[in-house]
Amino acid sequence: MRIDYSPIGVVHSPFKNAEGTPIQPSRAKGACGQVEVYPEYEEGLSDLDGFSHIVLLCHLHQSSGYSLKVIPFLDTVPRGLFATRAPKRPNPIGLSVVRLLQVVGCVLEIEELDLLDGTPVLDIKPYVQTFDERRDVRSGWIDAARRHTDVADDRFSKP
Amino acid sequence: MRIDYSPIGVVHSPFKNAEGTPIQPSRAKGACGQVEVYPEYEEGLSDLDGFSHIVLLCHLHQSSGYSLKVIPFLDTVPRGLFATRAPKRPNPIGLSVVRLLQVVGCVLEIEELDLLDGTPVLDIKPYVQTFDERRDVRSGWIDAARRHTDVADDRFSKP
Repeated sequence: MRIDYSPIGVVHSPFKNAEGTPIQPSRAKGACGQVEVYPEYEEGLSDLDGFSHIVLLCHLHQSSGYSLKVIPFLDTVPRGLFATRAPKRPNPIGLSVVRLLQVVGCVLEIEELDLLDGTPVLDIKPYVQTFDERRDVRSGWIDAARRHTDVADDRFSKP
Repeated sequence: MRIDYSPIGVVHSPFKNAEGTPIQPSRAKGACGQVEVYPEYEEGLSDLDGFSHIVLLCHLHQSSGYSLKVIPFLDTVPRGLFATRAPKRPNPIGLSVVRLLQVVGCVLEIEELDLLDGTPVLDIKPYVQTFDERRDVRSGWIDAARRHTDVADDRFSKP
């Protein structure tokens, strides 16, 4: 079964390469950019300006290939890929909850950006606290992460 | 630009039709099911059992077509599609944070399930509180939602 998608927009970002890009939006305070939504979808942006945060689902276009065991940025030993947020995945879809500063026509001004310049955007959803927040969460190996960093290196950039 | 994905697994759910299906995992307490991950991806599930919650990105296969303005389940007036979580979208990718009860081989036993039976799974990520939780959130029209319901009707089921 093949599933075909087309981007609804594109990310404009100060980050041109993985190395030095924040590993998560929550580590990207002050990193600003834009989502340019293609004009045919502009009507779908109505009411979005009432939300302080949005979910971006993106095609991580610089990712190619994957391993089922990876050493994540926050650890020193291999972990199962689906227990990590590493970008090289069978279907490389990125999930980024970013701060929405302003909507100007087709352009979303955003902050807390962890995406590379030129990343195709597949979907935009409002972040809703009562839908998206969980309590009493256990986060496995990440609760005991052995390494601390806010930015990526190039380990997932090579084919 | 076309983006091609292939499912890594499939959802087994008690919900066979949209009508009566929980509108969100947070409204689906006690609703249990499974994600069957295809055997070639099993190694990628290592370490996942340490997480209490996982993010499922799914292809909402019963969705076809979309409108850029929709009346969401929680309101009585049309809203911009990207300011809603309605399932009929240009790229119908569902985002569900579900509770992970157990991992048995290739099968994830899950709770708080809002997905239809047979839904193709595109990606599985660990839910990480320090990555995924936001504070000081404004949720636009949803903060003042005019309608209350925990379950869907069939408004987004028709082609």
